[in-house]
Amino acid sequence: MKKLFSAVLLLAAALAGAQTISSPDKNLSLTFALSAKGEPTYQLTYKNKPVIKTSKLGLDLKKEADMLEGFTVTGTKQASFDETWSPVWGEQKDIRNNYNELVVTIAQQAEKGRFINIRFRVFNDGLGFRYEFPEQPNLNYFVIKEEKTQFALAGDHKAFWLPGDYDTQEYSTVTSKLSEVRGKMKEAVTPNASQHPFSDTGLQTPLMMKSNDGLYINIHEAGLINYSCMSLNLDDKNMILESWLTPDAIGDKGYMQTTTQSPWRTVVVSDKATDILASKLILNLNEPTKYKDVSWIKPVKYVGVWWEMITGKSTWAYNDLTNVKLGELDYSKTKPNGKHAANNAHVREYIDFAAKHGFDAVLVEGWNEGWEDWFGKSKEYVFDFVTPYPDFDIKALNDYAHSKGVKIIMHHETSGAAANYERHMDKAYQLMNDYGYNAVKSGYVGDIIPRGEFHYSQSMINHYNYAITKAADYKIMVNAHEAVRPTGLSRTYPNLIGNEAARGTEYEAFGGNNADHTTILPFTRLMGGPMDYTPGIFQTKVSAYNPENNSFVHTTLVKQLALYVTMYSPLQMAADLPETYNKYLDAFQFIKDVAVDWDNSYILEAEPGDYITIARKAKGKDEWYVGAINDENARTAKITFEYLPKGKTYTATIYADGADAHYEKNPQSYTIKTIKVTSKTKLDQKLAPGGGCAISIK
Amino acid sequence: MKKLFSAVLLLAAALAGAQTISSPDKNLSLTFALSAKGEPTYQLTYKNKPVIKTSKLGLDLKKEADMLEGFTVTGTKQASFDETWSPVWGEQKDIRNNYNELVVTIAQQAEKGRFINIRFRVFNDGLGFRYEFPEQPNLNYFVIKEEKTQFALAGDHKAFWLPGDYDTQEYSTVTSKLSEVRGKMKEAVTPNASQHPFSDTGLQTPLMMKSNDGLYINIHEAGLINYSCMSLNLDDKNMILESWLTPDAIGDKGYMQTTTQSPWRTVVVSDKATDILASKLILNLNEPTKYKDVSWIKPVKYVGVWWEMITGKSTWAYNDLTNVKLGELDYSKTKPNGKHAANNAHVREYIDFAAKHGFDAVLVEGWNEGWEDWFGKSKEYVFDFVTPYPDFDIKALNDYAHSKGVKIIMHHETSGAAANYERHMDKAYQLMNDYGYNAVKSGYVGDIIPRGEFHYSQSMINHYNYAITKAADYKIMVNAHEAVRPTGLSRTYPNLIGNEAARGTEYEAFGGNNADHTTILPFTRLMGGPMDYTPGIFQTKVSAYNPENNSFVHTTLVKQLALYVTMYSPLQMAADLPETYNKYLDAFQFIKDVAVDWDNSYILEAEPGDYITIARKAKGKDEWYVGAINDENARTAKITFEYLPKGKTYTATIYADGADAHYEKNPQSYTIKTIKVTSKTKLDQKLAPGGGCAISIK
Repeated sequence: MKKLFSAVLLLAAALAGAQTISSPDKNLSLTFALSAKGEPTYQLTYKNKPVIKTSKLGLDLKKEADMLEGFTVTGTKQASFDETWSPVWGEQKDIRNNYNELVVTIAQQAEKGRFINIRFRVFNDGLGFRYEFPEQPNLNYFVIKEEKTQFALAGDHKAFWLPGDYDTQEYSTVTSKLSEVRGKMKEAVTPNASQHPFSDTGLQTPLMMKSNDGLYINIHEAGLINYSCMSLNLDDKNMILESWLTPDAIGDKGYMQTTTQSPWRTVVVSDKATDILASKLILNLNEPTKYKDVSWIKPVKYVGVWWEMITGKSTWAYNDLTNVKLGELDYSKTKPNGKHAANNAHVREYIDFAAKHGFDAVLVEGWNEGWEDWFGKSKEYVFDFVTPYPDFDIKALNDYAHSKGVKIIMHHETSGAAANYERHMDKAYQLMNDYGYNAVKSGYVGDIIPRGEFHYSQSMINHYNYAITKAADYKIMVNAHEAVRPTGLSRTYPNLIGNEAARGTEYEAFGGNNADHTTILPFTRLMGGPMDYTPGIFQTKVSAYNPENNSFVHTTLVKQLALYVTMYSPLQMAADLPETYNKYLDAFQFIKDVAVDWDNSYILEAEPGDYITIARKAKGKDEWYVGAINDENARTAKITFEYLPKGKTYTATIYADGADAHYEKNPQSYTIKTIKVTSKTKLDQKLAPGGGCAISIK
Repeated sequence: MKKLFSAVLLLAAALAGAQTISSPDKNLSLTFALSAKGEPTYQLTYKNKPVIKTSKLGLDLKKEADMLEGFTVTGTKQASFDETWSPVWGEQKDIRNNYNELVVTIAQQAEKGRFINIRFRVFNDGLGFRYEFPEQPNLNYFVIKEEKTQFALAGDHKAFWLPGDYDTQEYSTVTSKLSEVRGKMKEAVTPNASQHPFSDTGLQTPLMMKSNDGLYINIHEAGLINYSCMSLNLDDKNMILESWLTPDAIGDKGYMQTTTQSPWRTVVVSDKATDILASKLILNLNEPTKYKDVSWIKPVKYVGVWWEMITGKSTWAYNDLTNVKLGELDYSKTKPNGKHAANNAHVREYIDFAAKHGFDAVLVEGWNEGWEDWFGKSKEYVFDFVTPYPDFDIKALNDYAHSKGVKIIMHHETSGAAANYERHMDKAYQLMNDYGYNAVKSGYVGDIIPRGEFHYSQSMINHYNYAITKAADYKIMVNAHEAVRPTGLSRTYPNLIGNEAARGTEYEAFGGNNADHTTILPFTRLMGGPMDYTPGIFQTKVSAYNPENNSFVHTTLVKQLALYVTMYSPLQMAADLPETYNKYLDAFQFIKDVAVDWDNSYILEAEPGDYITIARKAKGKDEWYVGAINDENARTAKITFEYLPKGKTYTATIYADGADAHYEKNPQSYTIKTIKVTSKTKLDQKLAPGGGCAISIK
């Protein structure tokens, strides 16, 4: 009894100066307080269940005194906000941004009154908070040694996690209890083109968790600008996650100049998994775009000269040399290897195919000089982004494409040499303008140059954002691969229409993705923004293209279709080869039909790692598309249609797994049938192991 | 006796496969040989005296096997070369490039026959050698851990040295025995805006030495391109200097792709100090320029809005804020500090002064936004290089200058943020083109960004050269301060018309340069190329401009004049304020008259640390200028005129120290007189302590 009493007393002491705000629907409650030592803390409950227990806030600084304790509250402000805004593109045409806000100003008297603000926003779907550093006499420039934000969890949750790494998110998700992370880490860190795992209990965000009492909790960040990327480190004794920023080449984690702020730290929470997928909290925490003209930003459905290189059927490189100096080697005098895909004749075939089937664009990789020795050499001048191979006629091909109503998508692989890319960026974008390209896929495969920087260092975050804003100057849309995972920045920079930052379809040709992979990604990677996942592989046996590659796609053919709905993106590729699509034109019809921009989205069912069923209404059209996917276990999806206008009947074309379909044994078994549906229809749809279902409704 | 016998045997073994070549005049002899372990070695004699004793060559590689031993000679080639070429600008209009060459190909059988070439060129004035790495199956990409080139000296020489440092050359030269370096290092490492001394016996190049038997020996490098800067580390037990390259942020010292090569390692040697100053070996080892049009490259004599800021009389900054965000702060709404020098009215005064006295140009520093918090903050976006302060009308001032036949020299201080400079470089140079600037002074004060890189890292070497070549695209001449010390690259890139990379005149306002400073610099810093030393300070008491600054210039007024001749540069500033020159117009006449480009130069007397007397013939004119300087000890210079055309009489105007002149006590005492001279005239000219003499001959 005495013990309990002490605990209560301590709690009271800890909550001195406590401030509490709730979400508009009152389900969420956020409390800020200072500890007895003047440490800022916060806690979060959902329907009175603890989500985040009392957790410390603050920062370790280099040179200067830390911002961890000795604080007093010198001011608080509360406010409410409710607004509906329309994204340039998205899962829904209107997004409600509704929160209650608490801003606490805390000062360190021992540091001449140096003060910061902590801003909390509590939404119905979660919490966002950030540190703000106003300009003041004793705080102008400072260097962050580490951010010390804690997320004290209420239990040993089930987690869907990736190893914490400064250089990659391209790991398979591990599903385990948090207490099992340490034991599974070694196995989880599989080889990657660049990687730097930092701890035995390091975790990437977005981190998806599920508590024993049924809460779904997602931790990530929003608005990552001029700051280093946050990972989390798990104290697996106390189940406390702590922010772990990506260092720069000299180990520092943030160069700050007031007035400035950290990105938002986000906790999306609900007792329904579907709410997590429906959350727009991260977008809402980002700033509205400042672009005055956004008419040039348009969702894109595309095909590309790509999968054939990924599978090993053909090559990015023009010849078989292993040592190339740009500007010195005359490619026209070298012997072509005969497998170079981005050649005039072949690209024309893709353009013809795209035009015939109504695609917006054709991505062409391997069009430019330098692919012979582009990887793993830490080669700085690796590409110039403007010089095509001799068999790629940049003008003729663009003219041909445009004559058929198709755009070519530019490709800027940097090989991680960001400094080199910046040197050539203006000329590269200008070239795109000159020839009528309006979108670029950029890539950052391999270790970064400047050497010592990581993919997620502050300077690289600044580089990615620099590339996006500079591209906007040229009215160019960006799809950045191997860049940092998104944090909702597409609200501010809507020309960022795609990112990779996870294992995409390409890994199906590199040994395969887990069968549950795409049932997890929307809960993790996609929380921050769309992914250029590149679905649509119908020929699931890679050996059909390259006898030496025994990988296979870990889905049924139909699940590939469903991904166009479940993996939201304004940029969707039909990644397989035209020759394959020509064999399955009936199934291909779904890819041709499916929208890439939406009026609204309906998360019908979801459980991370198991299944997802989503319906979406095409933007500006009376068309709906449904995607249902599952993991390796067969399942019956409960598909409803209550989002259809009441009293009207529609024709639904159902692309379903065949009765004998199986992602490994029989992936290409499918059926297509047409039924009539109304808002009252309920459909029990069988999904094969690793299978799915796709429905188009008109 | 037995011991001696062994030594001879060892020597014989060591010299297996020895190859010897001599200089054209036979004074120098270079021998290459492999040691018993297959280590490449070389030695150098001058008139049979050892200059470099048997010294090892080779490289430590990262990851791959070292290139240090296990070599066999697989080929040798000898050749002779004799050519005379004309620099775009220089100390003489024709330069003879005459050497004998030995190329040794050595292979490592243990490394699958991996081979390199070592190329030696022996000139009458010294030796140059380099490593060459041809493309080959087993050598494409490699990383240098350290270059292991040794210079085994024949004794404990007197040395004129700077502390070895990755980030600065701006130390006072220490004159001591090599054996005394270690004891003097701590005191020698004085504070600097950026510095990274690396060893207790580290030394910068150019390193000037004098042996007990009277040999003058200078070690440096030539043609520093895509390689890191070489310092030297002294083994002070054995008097062996070893190359010590500047690391990058992760400690690596060179990223190499074959075919490539190291810079030349140079040993200039003579028994006459004057020969060292006359040597053109380093220029000769550089490649001829590939610029097709060099008509836009012209020597420049200039004044500038600069010394008044250096002294503290006025400021670069427009206001007194300490936290500025470019593009966010509206300067026109801030309160000017009233001391901003680069304002329209004041710059016009400089333009008027320049025009009146026939100067080519006016440098203006502090013209652009960002100077309020430019230094020491590791601030990346510190300048944009295009946005002037509100009181600097870029168009009007350039128009005004051009109307008077004067150019404004652009100033690009980067604050070490090279990455930021590269982002803005194209626009910055374009702005210069738009307004008619044709020269830029760039600066790299402070720690480098990308963080972790040093001023002399390979990536920064590449940056400086990138800036030079990109400037050439815009027909812009470059004067780079705080960049790496030059290595003769102005032969290849003649738009590199100036560098700093040593303590210039500015240090006279920061406590003062040693009185012998400029008697050493031509033997050290200037060996690699001209320096923008900015002489011409007549008001030697800095307190006259800023009562709070008690520094004084450690020369007489006349020595300031003599520096225009002794410190060769195609870019010469009259650094003092117009108001001061107006008080000393008779002495100022010499600065107005003196040429900045030459048909020929004559080193009449020289001893490092003591005195230098040089005569030069103005390019294309029958005019000669003589400069004589000394250290803190009074001296009588022996000035001869045998370079004048025989049988003709000329009028010489002699600017001499007053009888009572003294660099500290009475610096402004001078006399001006006119005498007649012929080629036979000999003049014993008294130089005051810290004094000099300047003569113009017409």
